[in-house]
Amino acid sequence: MTLHPAIKVVIITEKMIVKGVCQIIEAAGASGYTIMAAGGKGSHGIRNISDTAAVIDSFSDVRIEVIIQDRNKAEEIMKKVHTTYFEDYAGIAYLDIVEVLRPQKF
Amino acid sequence: MTLHPAIKVVIITEKMIVKGVCQIIEAAGASGYTIMAAGGKGSHGIRNISDTAAVIDSFSDVRIEVIIQDRNKAEEIMKKVHTTYFEDYAGIAYLDIVEVLRPQKF
Amino acid sequence: MTLHPAIKVVIITEKMIVKGVCQIIEAAGASGYTIMAAGGKGSHGIRNISDTAAVIDSFSDVRIEVIIQDRNKAEEIMKKVHTTYFEDYAGIAYLDIVEVLRPQKF
Repeated sequence: MTLHPAIKVVIITEKMIVKGVCQIIEAAGASGYTIMAAGGKGSHGIRNISDTAAVIDSFSDVRIEVIIQDRNKAEEIMKKVHTTYFEDYAGIAYLDIVEVLRPQKF
Repeated sequence: MTLHPAIKVVIITEKMIVKGVCQIIEAAGASGYTIMAAGGKGSHGIRNISDTAAVIDSFSDVRIEVIIQDRNKAEEIMKKVHTTYFEDYAGIAYLDIVEVLRPQKF
Repeated sequence: MTLHPAIKVVIITEKMIVKGVCQIIEAAGASGYTIMAAGGKGSHGIRNISDTAAVIDSFSDVRIEVIIQDRNKAEEIMKKVHTTYFEDYAGIAYLDIVEVLRPQKF
């Protein structure tokens, strides 16, 4: 079985800006993305939450992941999310190399 | 502290086939798996969802992750999920190398 | 665009110990973490669940991820979670190298 490298971009940020983040992802030419509910603390999540229990009960963050074949597009998404949102909203983004079966799908 | 390489397989697909996917994972000899609720768009998630808000409110996808020591077993899971389900259901799968403390556990 | 390596620590374990795990993460000097609801089977998740449907409906596990610049701190979190909890509670932990834009944030 031949696997091919692809780039995973993960963005964890506030739920209220999910629409804008997804527009950035689509504009970069990604073929899709996955959204999950999340909570957190510090720069990784929502601000000013000191009670872990509260974080778990009310997930007000989202974790969005995108698999994309072209590294330049992946970096473009990351950069645009940073410049557009991460001055005003809590959030982190990271990139990871993964392996996929059908690279043309991404 | 000595860490050991292991393979993570991630499968993101429609909730309705989760049972079959988990059977493939168990048949391959994985010692366990983790399931999370997810939504999405395009080939990464459910089809025909154009409103991001709707995606977040009703998560009809799942993200399943498996850590497995043997790369062959990891690839077997990936291949079998592709051939069994990904012609008829939306879904993606990818593989990633991670590091674990007790490889014999996986 | 220059990206910098950072370490991602993922801990998947029972919800009831999330507070203690987060205290270990904060004590190690991480700037934040992300928590998601999860279910599972085997050593990756809660014990004694044989029905996949039940796993999905009642997520009693959590998936916690931390991005941290310093590998020693990442390993310290992993080791402490293992020694403090993983004899008595179901759980797994793994480490992965990712790429971030502003390493000083983590």
